[in-house]
Amino acid sequence: MSKIKVGIIGATGYVGAELVRGLAVHPQALITVLTSRSFAGKKFSDVYPAFDGICDLTLTDAAPAQVAEQCDLVITALPHGVSSVTVPMLLNAGVRVIDHSGDFRYRTLSSYTESYKLEHPCPELLSEAVYGIPELYRKQLIGAKLTANPGCYPTCSILALAPFLRHSLIKADGIIIDALSAVSGAGRKADLPFSFCELDESFKPYSVINHRHTTEIEQECSILAGKDIKVTFTPHLIPVKRGMLATIYAEPAASDGSCSLSALREALESDYANEPFVRLKNGSALPSTGAVVGTNYIDISVDHDPRTGRIKIMSAVDNLGKGAALQAIQAMNSMFGLPETTGLQNMTSGL
Amino acid sequence: MSKIKVGIIGATGYVGAELVRGLAVHPQALITVLTSRSFAGKKFSDVYPAFDGICDLTLTDAAPAQVAEQCDLVITALPHGVSSVTVPMLLNAGVRVIDHSGDFRYRTLSSYTESYKLEHPCPELLSEAVYGIPELYRKQLIGAKLTANPGCYPTCSILALAPFLRHSLIKADGIIIDALSAVSGAGRKADLPFSFCELDESFKPYSVINHRHTTEIEQECSILAGKDIKVTFTPHLIPVKRGMLATIYAEPAASDGSCSLSALREALESDYANEPFVRLKNGSALPSTGAVVGTNYIDISVDHDPRTGRIKIMSAVDNLGKGAALQAIQAMNSMFGLPETTGLQNMTSGL
Amino acid sequence: MSKIKVGIIGATGYVGAELVRGLAVHPQALITVLTSRSFAGKKFSDVYPAFDGICDLTLTDAAPAQVAEQCDLVITALPHGVSSVTVPMLLNAGVRVIDHSGDFRYRTLSSYTESYKLEHPCPELLSEAVYGIPELYRKQLIGAKLTANPGCYPTCSILALAPFLRHSLIKADGIIIDALSAVSGAGRKADLPFSFCELDESFKPYSVINHRHTTEIEQECSILAGKDIKVTFTPHLIPVKRGMLATIYAEPAASDGSCSLSALREALESDYANEPFVRLKNGSALPSTGAVVGTNYIDISVDHDPRTGRIKIMSAVDNLGKGAALQAIQAMNSMFGLPETTGLQNMTSGL
Amino acid sequence: MSKIKVGIIGATGYVGAELVRGLAVHPQALITVLTSRSFAGKKFSDVYPAFDGICDLTLTDAAPAQVAEQCDLVITALPHGVSSVTVPMLLNAGVRVIDHSGDFRYRTLSSYTESYKLEHPCPELLSEAVYGIPELYRKQLIGAKLTANPGCYPTCSILALAPFLRHSLIKADGIIIDALSAVSGAGRKADLPFSFCELDESFKPYSVINHRHTTEIEQECSILAGKDIKVTFTPHLIPVKRGMLATIYAEPAASDGSCSLSALREALESDYANEPFVRLKNGSALPSTGAVVGTNYIDISVDHDPRTGRIKIMSAVDNLGKGAALQAIQAMNSMFGLPETTGLQNMTSGL
Repeated sequence: MSKIKVGIIGATGYVGAELVRGLAVHPQALITVLTSRSFAGKKFSDVYPAFDGICDLTLTDAAPAQVAEQCDLVITALPHGVSSVTVPMLLNAGVRVIDHSGDFRYRTLSSYTESYKLEHPCPELLSEAVYGIPELYRKQLIGAKLTANPGCYPTCSILALAPFLRHSLIKADGIIIDALSAVSGAGRKADLPFSFCELDESFKPYSVINHRHTTEIEQECSILAGKDIKVTFTPHLIPVKRGMLATIYAEPAASDGSCSLSALREALESDYANEPFVRLKNGSALPSTGAVVGTNYIDISVDHDPRTGRIKIMSAVDNLGKGAALQAIQAMNSMFGLPETTGLQNMTSGL
Repeated sequence: MSKIKVGIIGATGYVGAELVRGLAVHPQALITVLTSRSFAGKKFSDVYPAFDGICDLTLTDAAPAQVAEQCDLVITALPHGVSSVTVPMLLNAGVRVIDHSGDFRYRTLSSYTESYKLEHPCPELLSEAVYGIPELYRKQLIGAKLTANPGCYPTCSILALAPFLRHSLIKADGIIIDALSAVSGAGRKADLPFSFCELDESFKPYSVINHRHTTEIEQECSILAGKDIKVTFTPHLIPVKRGMLATIYAEPAASDGSCSLSALREALESDYANEPFVRLKNGSALPSTGAVVGTNYIDISVDHDPRTGRIKIMSAVDNLGKGAALQAIQAMNSMFGLPETTGLQNMTSGL
Repeated sequence: MSKIKVGIIGATGYVGAELVRGLAVHPQALITVLTSRSFAGKKFSDVYPAFDGICDLTLTDAAPAQVAEQCDLVITALPHGVSSVTVPMLLNAGVRVIDHSGDFRYRTLSSYTESYKLEHPCPELLSEAVYGIPELYRKQLIGAKLTANPGCYPTCSILALAPFLRHSLIKADGIIIDALSAVSGAGRKADLPFSFCELDESFKPYSVINHRHTTEIEQECSILAGKDIKVTFTPHLIPVKRGMLATIYAEPAASDGSCSLSALREALESDYANEPFVRLKNGSALPSTGAVVGTNYIDISVDHDPRTGRIKIMSAVDNLGKGAALQAIQAMNSMFGLPETTGLQNMTSGL
Repeated sequence: MSKIKVGIIGATGYVGAELVRGLAVHPQALITVLTSRSFAGKKFSDVYPAFDGICDLTLTDAAPAQVAEQCDLVITALPHGVSSVTVPMLLNAGVRVIDHSGDFRYRTLSSYTESYKLEHPCPELLSEAVYGIPELYRKQLIGAKLTANPGCYPTCSILALAPFLRHSLIKADGIIIDALSAVSGAGRKADLPFSFCELDESFKPYSVINHRHTTEIEQECSILAGKDIKVTFTPHLIPVKRGMLATIYAEPAASDGSCSLSALREALESDYANEPFVRLKNGSALPSTGAVVGTNYIDISVDHDPRTGRIKIMSAVDNLGKGAALQAIQAMNSMFGLPETTGLQNMTSGL
C-alpha cells in the first residue's frame, strides 16, 4: 500500500506540531504539505527547532484546493468558525478531512449555535461528520470522509463515563466533572495571561460557567445514557506543558443508593479489555498525567466512597495526545483501513 | 509590652520554617528556642540557608520542659501521635501551646480514633483545645491555653463553606470538595515519590477515599450546619511548591432548586466584610494560588451554574500560610491579646 | 520624621510590582502615586490580585510634573530611551529620582551611545547620577538627587568581583562571567518566546555576543581595577520566575599563577563583614538562588581549582530583589538618611 | 536477521527506564530480561506506570550469568565499583556489554584510581573497552565486546570541542566548560536534597572543584588535541527533569589571537556534515535543551566575541538521551552492524 499523503492546515500551533511529531514516525503516512499564515516561507523546523532533521518542510499559505491536490487526507487545526469555511472546500476538492475545531462536533445545529454563537455555513455536514473517538465510533470511522476530532476535555470525560452510562451503573443526572489542564491546551499565542511568569507556580479555575466543552460532553453522554442530560463542568489551569486529568463525581444508579465497586470495575474491564489505548488502574493505583504525556493512552480508575455513596471516576490523557493530535492519527488509521495502533506504539512517555 | 517568647518544636519541617519566617518579622514575638531531632547542634540557617542573617539560632533537642522554661508559647510542628504526648508536658510546664497535628482538632474521642487509628493519651484536652480558625473561634482563642491549628485542606474548605452553611443557603448534604495541593503539603522528607523527577510536570489525585482531613472538615461543617453531615473530598497533588485550591460543589438549599447568586455573594460579604485575611472575588475574578502564596490570605469566590443548578465555591490559600504557619501566628495574636494582623501584614506575595 | 512620599512611574511591570511589595511594608515610605499607560484607571490590585488589600491605589497616566507634585521621590521603571526624557522633567519638578533603565548608568556618553545606540537628550546628568550599588557608592548616595539603579547582571557580577579586583587578587584581563537568569528578567509582556509552553522545562543561552549589560559591568570593574578591562559575558534563560546566578572565572594575579584560597576569602570577609545584605558562603556551601529569592541579599562564594589554577566566584541574587527593586529601596534609604536596612529586613525568603 | 536480545541490569533507574523506552520501539531489539534489586518480583510497569502496555516484563534479581543466558547484549546501569565486578562476569558468560558507569571509561588505571578512589578489579579490560561516542569511535565500536558509555557531561562537552581541537582552531589550554544539568542526572533516589520542594524554582552550582567527569573530558580532549590538557569544569543543577547544556569558553589557537568565525563553523560543518545526530546552529540560532529532550540529538553552535577574542561553543543534549541511554542504543547499533539510526529516529521531541 502506498503511504497516506497528509497535509496539515494550521501546522504551527501546538496541535499541528504534535500531528507532525506523530506522523513523522508513522510508517504508512507521509506529510506532504504544511500550512501556516504567520510563518509561510519558513521551514517547519525553523519554527520548531526540535524538528530539525525530522521535518524540514517549508510552510506554505496555499489555499485549501491547492493543499488538497497533494493529499489523501487533510487535517485542519484551525479556530472554530474558520474550519467551517475551510473544510467544505477540502471535501469538495476530493480529500478526506479530520478537523480539530468545534465546528463539526455537534449533531444538531442548535447545539452548535448555542455553544459557539456563530452561524454555521454548511450545517448539512454536521450529520455527515463522525465524532472521532474510535472507542465509540469505530465502525463509522471506517471510510469516513469527515471526522470531527473531539475536544480534549470531552475525550477525557466521555471515555471515563461511557461504560457506566452505557451499563446504567450511574445516575445520568448530577454528574460533576472537575478537570485540570496543562497550559498547552490554550494554544500557541502571544498573550500576557499565558506568559511564563504569570502562570508559573500558580494554579486556578477558569471559565467556571459555560465552558464550551460542556455541551460537547453532554451531547455524547446523552447518547450513551439514552436520555438528555446536563453535566456540571469546571476546568482548571495547571502550570505544566502537557497533561489533563478529570475527576468525575456520580451517584450510583440504584434507587437505594447501593453500589458495587466490583460491578463498576467489571464494566470498565468488559468495555475496554480489547482497547489498545485505554488502560485501567485498579486497587490503589490512580491515573497520573505523567504516565500518559507524549502518548495516545487514556488511564482510567473508578472508586466508591462508602461515607457518602459517591462514585469517583478519574481519567488522565495528554491534552495534545489522546486529547487531540494522536487521537486524530488513531482515527486516521481507522479511516484508511490500517490497524488502529499503527505508528502510535512509537509514541511513548519516559521519565 | 514585652515580646512573646516563642519556641518551636519540630522547627526544620516546612511548617516550622514558615513559622520562623513569620515570627522573624513579627514586632511582638521573639523566637527563643528551636528544636530538631535530626539537626540538633546545627544552626537553623545551616539547614535553611535562606535564613542566614535572619535566624541563626542553634537547634536543640531539648526536652519539652526545658523548652517551656524559655517560652511563653510553644508551637509544635510534630506528627500526630507525637504531639499528643508532647503537648501535655508543655501545658504542665505552664506554657501555652499551638499544635499543628491532628491530635487536638477533634471534639469527640471517637472521631479522632476513627480518623487516626490511635489511642489518645490525654482525651480530656480535646474539650479544652480551641480549633484555631480565628474567623470562626475568635472569642475562644483569646486567652486560650491550647490551640489546635487546623489542617490546610480544612482551613481552605471550611472558610469557603461557612457563610453558606451558616445562612442555610446550601444543602448540607451532597457537598463535594475537589482540592488541589502543592507538594510542600506532604512535608519535608526523603521519599522517592516526592523526589523532583517523580513529580515535576505531572499531576494526579491521591488518597481519594478516606483522606484524614475529611472528618475534620465534616466536624466543623456539621457545627456550622447544625446537623451531622458528610462530605465527599478528593485531594490532588500539583507540581508547585506552595498553594492550595478548593473547588466546592453544593446544591441550593431551596426545595425547588432556585438560587440567587446575589444572595450567595451577600452572605460572603456580610460574614467576611471585616475580616482582614479573607478576600472576596466577584464578577469574573476567581481565586488563584499565585495571589495568596507567601501570605495569610484566603481568596474566595462563589458562582451559580444555571444549566445544572449547582453552586460552585472556590477558595485559595497558601498551604503553609493561612493553611498552617501564618494562621497559627494569627491565632497567637488573638491568644495574646494583640491585633490579629500584627506581623502578618509584612507577609506579602509578589510575582 | 514624616514618611517619604514615593511615586512609581511604570508601576505594573515586574520591577514596579516588586517596588510596591517592598514599599508596602516599609515603615518610612508611603506610596502616593502609581502610573501605568496600559492600565490607567484600574486599581493596582486589579492588575496584580496578590496586592488586594495591600495596595489598592488607582493607576494614573499622570504626566511627570503631576506625579512629582505628590512625591519626595519618584522611582522610574521605564524602558531606556524613555527614562532619559522623563527623568529630567522629574528633577526639574524638584523631586529626587531613582531610575531603573540603562540611561543614567554610564560615566561617559560614548559608552552609553555604543551600548544603547541612542542619542542621549541630557548627557549632563550622566555625571550627576550615582550608580546605585550602596556597597560601592554609599557616600555618594547620601543626599543624591539622581540614582541610576544598576542592571541585575551587573549587580550580581560587580559585587562578586569587587573585593578581588580592589585587592588585586585576580588578573583584570580574561574574566569570564557565565550567568543564569529567571524569566522575570525579561519583563512583563505578551511575547510568544516568553509564553509558558515555549519556556517551561527548557533552558538556553541568549544574546551571547554583546549583551548590553557587558559594558555596564566593564565600566564598574574597570574603576575597581584601576585600568580599562573587558569581560566575556554570557547570559542564559532558566525556566523559573525569579533568581539569578553568576559563575565567574578569573586567573590569580600572581605572575607565577600561585593562589591562596584563604587570601581570597579574607578579601571577601574584610570587604563585606559589615554589609547587611552580603552573605558569604564558605567551605562546601555555595550560593543558590532559592536562598535569596524575595530578598535583598546577595550570596557569594569563592573557590580555587588547583588543577587549572582558575578562581571560581559564584554569586546569587533575586533579579527583582537585590538585582532591581529592593536594591533601589536600599539606595532610597541611603538617599534619605535612613538606616540602609529599613523595611528590607521584612523581605524574607521561605521555602 | 533475528532481533538482538537485550538485558538491562539496573533497569529501574532513570537511565534504565530510558533504555526501555528506546528499546521498546527499536525494530531490531528485543528486551529479554530486566533486573532490579529493589523491585524484583514487580512488573517494570508497576514501577513506571507510563510503561503499562509497553513493557510489562517482571523484574528479576537474577545473577549476571543467568542474565547472560537470555541475551546477546547486556546493558549495565549500575554504580561505579559495582559495574567493575559485574561486567567481567557477563563477558565471561559470552555476551557483549554496554556499561554506563565510570568503570571502563579510562585508558589508564591511574586516571581511574585518581578519579574514583577505588581499586579496579579487572584493569586489563580498560584497554579492551571502547569509549562509546560513535561520532569518535565508530570503527572501534563495530563488533566491540565492551563499550563504556560516556558520562552525560563528557558527551555534551567532547562532541562540542572535538572539531576545534582536531583542527587546532582553539588553544588546548585554558578551556572552561560551564555546564547545566537537569535533575534526572542525579539518578533516582530518595534523598532530601533532591526532593521536589528543595529544588523547585531554584538553581545552583555544585561540585565546583573536581567533579568526576572532569578527568573523563580531559582524557578525550587530550587525545583529540594530541597533548595532555586540563579543563576547568563547573556543573550546575537546573530545576527541570531532562536536559543538559554546556557553554564552553576557549581562546583562538593563533598566536596573535586572531580568529575567523567562518573557519570555526566550517570545521563544525566538515566534521559533522554526515552525522545523523549532530545538528549545527548557525546565525543567531542557539542550542536549547527543549529541542533535544527525548531524543538522541546534540545541538551545537559556535560564536566569537570580538570584544575579548573568546570563542564560545554551546551544546545541548538530553542527559538521558544522547547523554546516556539513547547514545548506548546508537552504540549498540554499531556493535551489531545495524545502521546507526535504527530505532532512534522514533525518539522525537515535541512541545
